[in-house]
Amino acid sequence: MATGRIVTLTTDFGQRDPFVGIMKGVILGICRDATLIDLTHEIEPFDIREGALALESAWRFFPMGTIHLAVVDPGVGGGRRALALEAGGHYFVGPDNGLFSFALTRGKCSAISIEAPAYRRFEVSRTFHGRDIFAPAAGHLAAGVPLEHLGPRITDPIQLPLPRCRRTGDEIVGEVVGTDRFGNLLTSVAADMVSELAPDGVIEVALAGREISGLASSYEESQPGVALAIVGSSGRLEIFVKNGSAQAALGAAPGAQVTIRRLGSSRRL
Amino acid sequence: MATGRIVTLTTDFGQRDPFVGIMKGVILGICRDATLIDLTHEIEPFDIREGALALESAWRFFPMGTIHLAVVDPGVGGGRRALALEAGGHYFVGPDNGLFSFALTRGKCSAISIEAPAYRRFEVSRTFHGRDIFAPAAGHLAAGVPLEHLGPRITDPIQLPLPRCRRTGDEIVGEVVGTDRFGNLLTSVAADMVSELAPDGVIEVALAGREISGLASSYEESQPGVALAIVGSSGRLEIFVKNGSAQAALGAAPGAQVTIRRLGSSRRL
Amino acid sequence: MATGRIVTLTTDFGQRDPFVGIMKGVILGICRDATLIDLTHEIEPFDIREGALALESAWRFFPMGTIHLAVVDPGVGGGRRALALEAGGHYFVGPDNGLFSFALTRGKCSAISIEAPAYRRFEVSRTFHGRDIFAPAAGHLAAGVPLEHLGPRITDPIQLPLPRCRRTGDEIVGEVVGTDRFGNLLTSVAADMVSELAPDGVIEVALAGREISGLASSYEESQPGVALAIVGSSGRLEIFVKNGSAQAALGAAPGAQVTIRRLGSSRRL
Repeated sequence: MATGRIVTLTTDFGQRDPFVGIMKGVILGICRDATLIDLTHEIEPFDIREGALALESAWRFFPMGTIHLAVVDPGVGGGRRALALEAGGHYFVGPDNGLFSFALTRGKCSAISIEAPAYRRFEVSRTFHGRDIFAPAAGHLAAGVPLEHLGPRITDPIQLPLPRCRRTGDEIVGEVVGTDRFGNLLTSVAADMVSELAPDGVIEVALAGREISGLASSYEESQPGVALAIVGSSGRLEIFVKNGSAQAALGAAPGAQVTIRRLGSSRRL
Repeated sequence: MATGRIVTLTTDFGQRDPFVGIMKGVILGICRDATLIDLTHEIEPFDIREGALALESAWRFFPMGTIHLAVVDPGVGGGRRALALEAGGHYFVGPDNGLFSFALTRGKCSAISIEAPAYRRFEVSRTFHGRDIFAPAAGHLAAGVPLEHLGPRITDPIQLPLPRCRRTGDEIVGEVVGTDRFGNLLTSVAADMVSELAPDGVIEVALAGREISGLASSYEESQPGVALAIVGSSGRLEIFVKNGSAQAALGAAPGAQVTIRRLGSSRRL
Repeated sequence: MATGRIVTLTTDFGQRDPFVGIMKGVILGICRDATLIDLTHEIEPFDIREGALALESAWRFFPMGTIHLAVVDPGVGGGRRALALEAGGHYFVGPDNGLFSFALTRGKCSAISIEAPAYRRFEVSRTFHGRDIFAPAAGHLAAGVPLEHLGPRITDPIQLPLPRCRRTGDEIVGEVVGTDRFGNLLTSVAADMVSELAPDGVIEVALAGREISGLASSYEESQPGVALAIVGSSGRLEIFVKNGSAQAALGAAPGAQVTIRRLGSSRRL
């Protein structure tokens, strides 16, 4: 039975360069039996929000005690703090730039600024804090070092504004937050909020003012070429086109407004 | 010594989204010491045949007891069965759409439909059965749960037609089944069948009616720019162009006809 | 506690085909508890120098005893030797084509030609020595087989010429050796040599005859759009453009000349 913890890795490093492998070498040098799992290294360079969304959709599917290491736009040399935090029984390590905003919304959270020299590489480079600060911190957490040994407690980690999603009467207004490989458009609209608005699921969906054909209960039941909403795997609405790309068909980008309206049952879609 | 089993993963999820990482989190939550190995996540979306070929070329190089998890076009919501099967001492888990056809051709095979609620996530989403059904099944098999606990036995898993490859007299007719990163064209023509046709290896190869310069014994012995056949690593003929792309040079796509003819020894290539 | 060794993998196989996964299956079949870490599989096909640079930047960040398996342009069938060597407490396995040149510059090194049939696959294909020769060798080393059991000692492994970097008086002349995902230009110019030339860091940098705006101490302190040099994470100069691509902005390719000149302190940049 393995005794080291699981460490997930999320970066904008891509997979062409050996940067991710180097971070893994550093972690294994500190905690030989850590289990290393890639979430993604294809975050658009410097896109903190995309990294935050990837983490938010994934972290809770890992066992308690997992360490989530994320490096996107670390602002090396610009005085940005290095952050380690514990929330919901998981650990998060990375730059203090909002990457962990969505984890921070979930109740009690302990955060520290990684500063203790004993838990960094002895020589910290000017360009690769993933290797010199963040990977060592993740490695030491994986080896069982308590969070508070890594540096002083802080109370003000940076948080991104959450994507908007508000209900006004019979209408919910949210936004597109991203896309996936299949061209599905991910939105900020929580399925729970839609159920409250329209327990019968009879809704009208508009994307950037353009009407979508309603709510599907599965990808399979829909017609090729028709854009529909569906409750996605993360519990929020997605807009998809069967066997095609909703992004290509609808031309929508992150930030585009999504509107949900309740319909009378006489207008079942 | 690790005690969990090896789980390989083959999907059309790509590597930009965290879907694969999420499945790994689910597996590790069930079997903490499983060893997770990616085969590929770059299967063309919905291309079941490409996924089946990838698996077919790889599975037998893993130790007995390995679990091969594959998710390509799972048909979520369309009533497609979720399949787990044992064949040749290996396990296969994925949608019942033909992904495991090539494993199924190899003798004795036990198949079940994954239905037992105890071995799925408690809440199954409408869009991500990889996370909610297939990863849990693979995790439980990795942890030692017997196959037959996962659901009722079935006898009719879907099988794709095998790529054609038939001999008629002095001729073998097969087809291109795919390409690899180097632009090599993979064919359905078994090297064994070619040896029987022409024990001296003196053959004429035609691709979509166009003649190829014969059979090479290594990539190195050939001339740059010249298309040649070679016995590929999976024991079937491939067509290659040294340090170039046969696919680009010859413009051939999967399904293109490949013809092998025996030559008199006076026409040694 | 894991007992098998770490095996890193570096190839030009890409990630679409299951070749890398197959090599991992072979290694795990020999050493079940090896820890497998990908460095990169996106080396440009046949680009030995790019593979050598990736390895050179990464290997020393892994624990002693790590095995670095690399397959780029193995020259299968052309009589190229298969190499295993030990240097600096690490092992390297791959074709004898210069891939390990940069490791070989570091002092004492033992090299053997992998020839012992007991440590290869029983049937060696004509096209996939990664699977049939190199992965088995790495697996056996991971399992603790001594290097010298794999084949006869050799003293002349192939070495690539090192990228040029020479000082003449007040000038260092080096070259661009590659780029990374962010478009940063990696050079051969060692930071140590620059410190000796100009202990105050006041230098003039020219790329292919075109002047760069000097030496930055961090990415953050610079202005968007301005090309600057910086001491990169591997201890050599890099040329970058903040939040942009130096490669795109400057149009420089590997081999382009980089010149460093010491300035009088009156010309501080």
